[in-house]
Amino acid sequence: MSAEQLEKQVRSLMNTICDIQAASSILNWDQETYMPNGAAETRAEQISSLDALAHQFLTGNDAVKAVEQIELLNGQSEQFPLLKLFKEDFEKAVKIPEDLVRKTSKATALAHESWKKARQASDFSLFEPSLQELVDLKIEAAELHGYKEDRYDALLNIFEPGMTVNLLTPVFDRLKTTTVDFLQSIESKKDSVTDEPMLRNYPHAGQMELSAFIAEKMGFRFNNGRIDLAAHPFCTSFSQYDVRLTTRVNENDLGSCLYGVIHEAGHGMYEQGFAPDLARTFGADGASMGIHESQSLLWETIITRSEEFWQFALPHLQKQFPGIADNNTPRDFFKAANTVRPSLIRVDADEVTYNMHIVLRFEIEQMMINGKIALKDIPELWREKMRSYLGVIPPNEAKGCLQDIHWSFGGFGYFPSYTLGKLYAAMLWKVIQKDIPSIKENIAVGDFTALLEWLGKNIHQYGRTQKPSEIMTRITGEPLNADDFIAYINTKFADVYR
Amino acid sequence: MSAEQLEKQVRSLMNTICDIQAASSILNWDQETYMPNGAAETRAEQISSLDALAHQFLTGNDAVKAVEQIELLNGQSEQFPLLKLFKEDFEKAVKIPEDLVRKTSKATALAHESWKKARQASDFSLFEPSLQELVDLKIEAAELHGYKEDRYDALLNIFEPGMTVNLLTPVFDRLKTTTVDFLQSIESKKDSVTDEPMLRNYPHAGQMELSAFIAEKMGFRFNNGRIDLAAHPFCTSFSQYDVRLTTRVNENDLGSCLYGVIHEAGHGMYEQGFAPDLARTFGADGASMGIHESQSLLWETIITRSEEFWQFALPHLQKQFPGIADNNTPRDFFKAANTVRPSLIRVDADEVTYNMHIVLRFEIEQMMINGKIALKDIPELWREKMRSYLGVIPPNEAKGCLQDIHWSFGGFGYFPSYTLGKLYAAMLWKVIQKDIPSIKENIAVGDFTALLEWLGKNIHQYGRTQKPSEIMTRITGEPLNADDFIAYINTKFADVYR
Repeated sequence: MSAEQLEKQVRSLMNTICDIQAASSILNWDQETYMPNGAAETRAEQISSLDALAHQFLTGNDAVKAVEQIELLNGQSEQFPLLKLFKEDFEKAVKIPEDLVRKTSKATALAHESWKKARQASDFSLFEPSLQELVDLKIEAAELHGYKEDRYDALLNIFEPGMTVNLLTPVFDRLKTTTVDFLQSIESKKDSVTDEPMLRNYPHAGQMELSAFIAEKMGFRFNNGRIDLAAHPFCTSFSQYDVRLTTRVNENDLGSCLYGVIHEAGHGMYEQGFAPDLARTFGADGASMGIHESQSLLWETIITRSEEFWQFALPHLQKQFPGIADNNTPRDFFKAANTVRPSLIRVDADEVTYNMHIVLRFEIEQMMINGKIALKDIPELWREKMRSYLGVIPPNEAKGCLQDIHWSFGGFGYFPSYTLGKLYAAMLWKVIQKDIPSIKENIAVGDFTALLEWLGKNIHQYGRTQKPSEIMTRITGEPLNADDFIAYINTKFADVYR
Repeated sequence: MSAEQLEKQVRSLMNTICDIQAASSILNWDQETYMPNGAAETRAEQISSLDALAHQFLTGNDAVKAVEQIELLNGQSEQFPLLKLFKEDFEKAVKIPEDLVRKTSKATALAHESWKKARQASDFSLFEPSLQELVDLKIEAAELHGYKEDRYDALLNIFEPGMTVNLLTPVFDRLKTTTVDFLQSIESKKDSVTDEPMLRNYPHAGQMELSAFIAEKMGFRFNNGRIDLAAHPFCTSFSQYDVRLTTRVNENDLGSCLYGVIHEAGHGMYEQGFAPDLARTFGADGASMGIHESQSLLWETIITRSEEFWQFALPHLQKQFPGIADNNTPRDFFKAANTVRPSLIRVDADEVTYNMHIVLRFEIEQMMINGKIALKDIPELWREKMRSYLGVIPPNEAKGCLQDIHWSFGGFGYFPSYTLGKLYAAMLWKVIQKDIPSIKENIAVGDFTALLEWLGKNIHQYGRTQKPSEIMTRITGEPLNADDFIAYINTKFADVYR
């Protein structure tokens, strides 16, 4: 069989699998947005059936035969990235028996419900039993996937191919030092910057309208997407033609909704930007979670937490909320959006202290997955680490170890992606400024066309057909560095706190 | 294998199939309510994949083996209604090749989009090509299903097991005569009844709130369901624990939303009422479309278009819309909700003229399926029949042959269910009045508990495990009659037009 014929055959198999996976994603999205409470148990069964089905197709006879054929191509498959991807995903999937897939899917759906209840009641003990079940299942999966040095590496790899505890630890240690140094350096000036302008009363409907307006300006296509309310902001997609963002609204904090939407829209535009040819194939996904986060964070931090952005956005904010910010300047909002203050909630954290939230989670997750902590001790360890890294202590568990959705879907190993995303974003930003010399002027007038085009051409269109290191090296000349991020932070916050 | 063991095995197979079908329903619901426009094509592919998959499982090796085992039980399967249902559904499904299932599913999704566009533009020609494709596919299906006398019988049977053109025609002819007689009898009194109270300006949000309040009072469980907006009111469910209603709002016609929600809630409570044991099996569905409609119509017409209902509901309406109906009496709204006036839109039609809308569609569909009309001639034939049966002529196609969603999902043979539902509902009502002597007093105070309990016990709990004629005979002593309906109409409208 020719490689072209084989690709056609494999594509058709991928279409079926991707359609089942898309259905599962829609069921998940619905569960988060509109599903009535009483449906949770049956929904868990339904999602579990779909996930098991996708797994059956990915590991079934047709897939086995296809992979044998791909192997016969003898390296020629390099020119057929979809064949390569199929083989890789097959090899990962066959390591996990269907029974474990089904159990994990069901445990995830139920854990998600118990997390929501626990969070509402601010009681970790309500979440603990289902978390334990998920941790046990993930340990089982990690053992089946295999690893060289640390069991946690097996899970890191799911989100960031090639990433290990040993590669991350020195980077994280360097960020720890930088953060401590930075916090000391601004200690005397901290009263010169305030986020008060963001914390006025901004009515719900206006926040949603302004956020949608900004997302549309950025280039998020509402003909292929939408924004809904959910307990936690997220982005999911059912194809590049149907990308769903969620947000939440706090009427006394504009940033929670606005930057939530901007962040998710950054993810969303990545998903909308995959080449049409990749639709309903394994290529229609981000290269990795780190690369995905580089897209959301580039928009959320570098682009829209800039003074130029507020030159564009402030008049729109003033129009949307008459009388609330009439006497403010763009610089007021620039500073408000970049107030550095050790705080409790990761998603609301500033760019400087954010990484400490990740380090904390990285360390706790490693312990969980290596069986070095009893789950019941997590709330206390969380408080202890928050105190030690950021000098703040959560008053309750909802604002502590129950704040994130990630553990409820078994996403252990995911958090480091956020910091990787920051590092990647800073690396990309250095190149973007060279490639689009007028970028800052563009931002100041709300023209994001050239930027989105650049991202589309250099990153989005490839979807998952290139590896993270391949993408970063092609664009920046190296796979990863922390220098660009540290330089960016130093320059920016010297300005904010000047 | 014992029958019990076999049932367990078949249940598990049904679970998988039902989960896939539920996913397909969720994708359809999402398409109607929240899906962005640009996703239509990919969504069609996804739904088509799921439908094909469900069909594969229903006709695959495991199913074939199960049906062989069921046959070996030699009639013992009568005591296992799920085994009986599985065998019946298998036998229906194997007649339709997977390719036809896939084509139909895809054609349906696309036809649905083109219907929406055509309806908006009020231009039937925009819908005609996809309608033609669907008609051709349905003719192919009818031929594969088989029939004795009329090709249309094969499609009628899908919605109402055992129903034929020959059984329906005399009933419809009788209703034609009754309607003409009735319209003549009230001709001189027609100005004594007006629907003006329903046609005042009722703001959107208040309509949704009042409708939801009434639905909840009736017994629709919002913990297992919800109401959303869509172009057309419908009810769909993904299990008895997740039932979705849709409605639309016309600010100058309270009845459109209110009675739309009541009607769909009638369907919804049927779906919520299936025995827990039937979840994720072929038993968790209505006995037939006619029985389903008997539930929605019982609530929408007999229960809530009564004077007693308005004794209960009017104070709530007055509270919801202060100043709009302060001087009206329950009898004003009773008469408003029962104004007989030949009109253009089926879903807005009164109980008397409604059946003429069905007769018209029944006749046109028969011609379509028997190839006795070119589709381009439908708008003209529609106008002609509306003129002849009801004396009104649609000013455009949106208010004529494009008003209904049914053809866009290939539901030829469905419309007669509405009239069957009316006949069944009147038959049930006669028994309900005997079994619950206080029923009218209950309605007058908004207490629907005994009624819902009666319906649950006599109808809902059985789901699809009993046939329509079996259910009707058990409750009323006979499978179908038109007398109870005609008697009900005569008594009721003698009161309205007294």
